[in-house]
Amino acid sequence: MTAHNPARRPSDTPGLGIGIGIDDLPIRDELRGKTPYGAPQLDVPVQLNTNENPYPLPEPLVARIAERVAEAARGLNRYPDRDAVELRTELARYLTRTGGYEVGLGNVWAANGSNEVLQQLLQTFGGPGRTAIGFEPSYSMHALIARGTGTGWISGPRNDDFTIDVDAARRAITTHAPDVVFITSPNNPTGTAVEAETVLALYEAAQEVKPSIVVVDEAYVEFSHRPSLLPLLDGRPHLVVSRTMSKAFGAAGLRLGYLAAHPAVVDAVQLVRLPYHLSAVTQATALAALEHTDTLLGYVEQLKAERDRLVAELRELGYEVTDSDANFVQFGRFDGPGGAQAAWRKILDRGVLVRDNGVPGRLRVTAGTPQENDAFLDAVRQLKKEQSA
Amino acid sequence: MTAHNPARRPSDTPGLGIGIGIDDLPIRDELRGKTPYGAPQLDVPVQLNTNENPYPLPEPLVARIAERVAEAARGLNRYPDRDAVELRTELARYLTRTGGYEVGLGNVWAANGSNEVLQQLLQTFGGPGRTAIGFEPSYSMHALIARGTGTGWISGPRNDDFTIDVDAARRAITTHAPDVVFITSPNNPTGTAVEAETVLALYEAAQEVKPSIVVVDEAYVEFSHRPSLLPLLDGRPHLVVSRTMSKAFGAAGLRLGYLAAHPAVVDAVQLVRLPYHLSAVTQATALAALEHTDTLLGYVEQLKAERDRLVAELRELGYEVTDSDANFVQFGRFDGPGGAQAAWRKILDRGVLVRDNGVPGRLRVTAGTPQENDAFLDAVRQLKKEQSA
Repeated sequence: MTAHNPARRPSDTPGLGIGIGIDDLPIRDELRGKTPYGAPQLDVPVQLNTNENPYPLPEPLVARIAERVAEAARGLNRYPDRDAVELRTELARYLTRTGGYEVGLGNVWAANGSNEVLQQLLQTFGGPGRTAIGFEPSYSMHALIARGTGTGWISGPRNDDFTIDVDAARRAITTHAPDVVFITSPNNPTGTAVEAETVLALYEAAQEVKPSIVVVDEAYVEFSHRPSLLPLLDGRPHLVVSRTMSKAFGAAGLRLGYLAAHPAVVDAVQLVRLPYHLSAVTQATALAALEHTDTLLGYVEQLKAERDRLVAELRELGYEVTDSDANFVQFGRFDGPGGAQAAWRKILDRGVLVRDNGVPGRLRVTAGTPQENDAFLDAVRQLKKEQSA
Repeated sequence: MTAHNPARRPSDTPGLGIGIGIDDLPIRDELRGKTPYGAPQLDVPVQLNTNENPYPLPEPLVARIAERVAEAARGLNRYPDRDAVELRTELARYLTRTGGYEVGLGNVWAANGSNEVLQQLLQTFGGPGRTAIGFEPSYSMHALIARGTGTGWISGPRNDDFTIDVDAARRAITTHAPDVVFITSPNNPTGTAVEAETVLALYEAAQEVKPSIVVVDEAYVEFSHRPSLLPLLDGRPHLVVSRTMSKAFGAAGLRLGYLAAHPAVVDAVQLVRLPYHLSAVTQATALAALEHTDTLLGYVEQLKAERDRLVAELRELGYEVTDSDANFVQFGRFDGPGGAQAAWRKILDRGVLVRDNGVPGRLRVTAGTPQENDAFLDAVRQLKKEQSA
């Protein structure tokens, strides 16, 4: 996936010849001049830039992962369970328990990160000659995966407070008649949760001109003040809820995303999934993590409290803060010289890495441990002083 | 990925509503009527149908995997190394040691199975408005991944003995001017190795009309009587060699594919890769397996001997057998009533699962353990008697 980044990574090793770069190869025209997507990975004491969970997995879970992976490794010469039946069953059980709606194996699909889930959805329901819409600013991978699958991208509107402007969004949907509609709740990078009524209104609009798929991306929903939108699946075969184990389960390194939907949707994505896409070690590790759900959701509670503290203290310092239902907080405004980028650099100079997502005048900070958040708050306190001076 | 299979999997769980099937959803037109790709997974004593390595990983390696995965699990709350630097370095070291040509980190890229490697190559160099060619019968996923990425597919010719007809292949390339050329060596499902001269001739042809990428798929090369085609990379920036740990490393369950090429190609695929596509547990497990390369290559030697025995004994029984450089053998002919499908069923009735790849009159058997191969040979010996009777 590509993005317009300032720096271009050079070939690290000449190896087979020198002097030839990406643009000398017969790559697709739309890739020319692009650079790979990804947050800068800098070696900084306090990393609050990629919405990772700051709590390492507890040792009993690490031991259980080793145990289950060893078991899987004994059969590693064989292909993995192509349909990931045990894992999907346990994910369905977790959703049923926490999402307020009963789903089963046939409603759940899993892949290598929610990015791959979304890619499979776009290969099935989007693709060349089709379009997808998202309401921006939002998770930038939606647009990038759309482009990667040849799906046209439509940037839909938001209100100034980053909530979805329902009337404008409905109009955009009926005007453009996209094949796929993305609704991110809580939204990244703003932290904004979406009302059930909004999803229902957009779902209806998305069925008006022609039947379209509506994907509710709930990557951060476990951190929300509000319940999951999962119950909206009832009677809506074109609605999909996507999830991840990267955030609430503290397993960004595992790459396990999943979706819940009508069984026909689960069948349909299997037409485009690469066979045996989900390795036996991934399945084993995810199953181990699901055994420790209660412990991991305990960390989520701590992070929600810290997130609320960040919002409150930033506001007290005089920052403009967007209401957050996620494990991160959008704050600003930095409208002075250099804008958000200059503020990002000053915070980094104090050893704290936050994220500039390109939203004018605003930055995003991930809720870390209490100590990490203190370090961040110290940094922005000093920044505020300088700016007031 | 899709194929025309006879059976259609029904939705296992009604869950959110009944009576709606895949074709009632707004899926892409080219997916209508298709079923998911994949060999039938049947519960049979002797499974010689998917070219898996029959030897489980040795216990010391299983222990090492558990150790390295536990280490990775302690940092699982963080995203994995996006560039998989340690793993790519070790894969390069393995290729240099065994492939007769020196490559480094910058020449190697890895993904979730060689299927994902090939998908990334097609997203970069193929895609809508572009085409790819393969010489069929060959690995059917090439065509399926082409279709999955919107790349037009051209079926190129082979000789009756399943070698590549160089003149016809050259003509097909200059006529159609494909953007990507697939050469599978050893070829699946026939087992046929490709001469270096053939690859060179096709590479030249593929640069004549316009520069095109040539992918040599060496998934089975460790089982070949001939050396790897890796040294052909020298001075050829449009050549790519793809590999997998599924076969020689006995790790089909791991899903680790990789490629070697000019560093510009490695940079280019990073424009389309999903960020953090390779999980920390996958990287850890692959690194553990690479530590045990010598042991695993010892199993490969045993399998080569068994493969040669299968070829010899099948020929002695009067079967027509295609020369094999892989861990499987194509044999026939079954031109009687019911053709290969009827023979497949009769072998299955004797507890041995082989593969009908759709090559008329022929079946494919994977080289298993000596005991498994004996069971297979008993089954086909009886089959031969019946047919002669």
